[in-house]
Amino acid sequence: MNPLAIPEIVIRRLPLYLRTLKLLADRGLTVTSSQEIGDRLGITATQVRKDLSYFGEFGKQGTGYEIKYLQEQLRQILQVDRTWKLALIGVGDLGRALLRFTAFEESGFEMAAVLDRDGAKIGRQVGRHTVLDVATLPAVIRERGIQVAVIAVPTRDAQEIADALVKAGIRAILSYAPIQLSLPQHIQVQQIDPILSLQGMTYYLDASQL
Amino acid sequence: MNPLAIPEIVIRRLPLYLRTLKLLADRGLTVTSSQEIGDRLGITATQVRKDLSYFGEFGKQGTGYEIKYLQEQLRQILQVDRTWKLALIGVGDLGRALLRFTAFEESGFEMAAVLDRDGAKIGRQVGRHTVLDVATLPAVIRERGIQVAVIAVPTRDAQEIADALVKAGIRAILSYAPIQLSLPQHIQVQQIDPILSLQGMTYYLDASQL
Repeated sequence: MNPLAIPEIVIRRLPLYLRTLKLLADRGLTVTSSQEIGDRLGITATQVRKDLSYFGEFGKQGTGYEIKYLQEQLRQILQVDRTWKLALIGVGDLGRALLRFTAFEESGFEMAAVLDRDGAKIGRQVGRHTVLDVATLPAVIRERGIQVAVIAVPTRDAQEIADALVKAGIRAILSYAPIQLSLPQHIQVQQIDPILSLQGMTYYLDASQL
Repeated sequence: MNPLAIPEIVIRRLPLYLRTLKLLADRGLTVTSSQEIGDRLGITATQVRKDLSYFGEFGKQGTGYEIKYLQEQLRQILQVDRTWKLALIGVGDLGRALLRFTAFEESGFEMAAVLDRDGAKIGRQVGRHTVLDVATLPAVIRERGIQVAVIAVPTRDAQEIADALVKAGIRAILSYAPIQLSLPQHIQVQQIDPILSLQGMTYYLDASQL
């Protein structure tokens, strides 16, 4: 099937299902239901079933989903049944926090290069990584076979770094900079901005309690 | 209108519109169009118009939207035309990165308290904040009138902190912990998890280039 034929909002929910299945598996469960998955995520069982039905028939009426099998299928669909190499650009507080984040490796990603522009950081060891000069970006990306990059640089440098990443052949960018990056259509971009999340919540708060 | 009558996905896009309008205003523009907003966000002009039409008639056929007016209206709708007080729990690398993030104040939020459980951090100065003991959470939340909290603690502590926050009267939580928090229905929760964003992108990548 053409991957673009499925609504993006459905795709964005699949990683949530995968994470929920892992949680259930970690607790020793082997079987689950659309109801249980939905309850944990605050969405309806019907929505869960509808989302999964885009990709096939994964459960049985009455018995539910075999967790391990559904995990494997979702990993395949999301293409995280393989390992994608990541580059992290920017080793400030945020970059260091990301380097401590152990979930990458178990979720289909391997931190393969860590770069910064700051001469005081280049050559230093951070965890198991030696910080590389961002000026060597094109060679590092090519030689290490990196496809995905995480931008954790100051806002003012983010667009320049993004442009350099695209030029170096990166195909997906996760950016922590609170600006809308301007990039070619064929580049996947996701942004992490706490303001967007916070402003999406205040809408629902009862301001009379302020 | 009942705030729950509008699809959540529409609400989640409003902060993006607001950020785009700010960008255009910062460049000195005074008028924009659904086409321009949509182009910058990679969504259609029709979608932008449809989303805004839930809340009223903000533009004029042919002349577009007055940026300043639309900003004011969106701020009012999202309830960020006032200031919400934030508590940050956890002053590790991530917490420190968040304390450097200047966008909170200009977006409707004020960092009003910073707490940690680590005796080595309590009492220390981080930026303009003195780190408070997380054991004093209930009193701090009440006395400072804090409504929203940001969780930046290690994963193993996140649920316990979330429970304490709810007990202390917090009504919205932004969590950086990569776990699904279990909380009462009436609490607003948003989670920031780079894995979810990364796995939502790999679906679209051409794995044959691996």
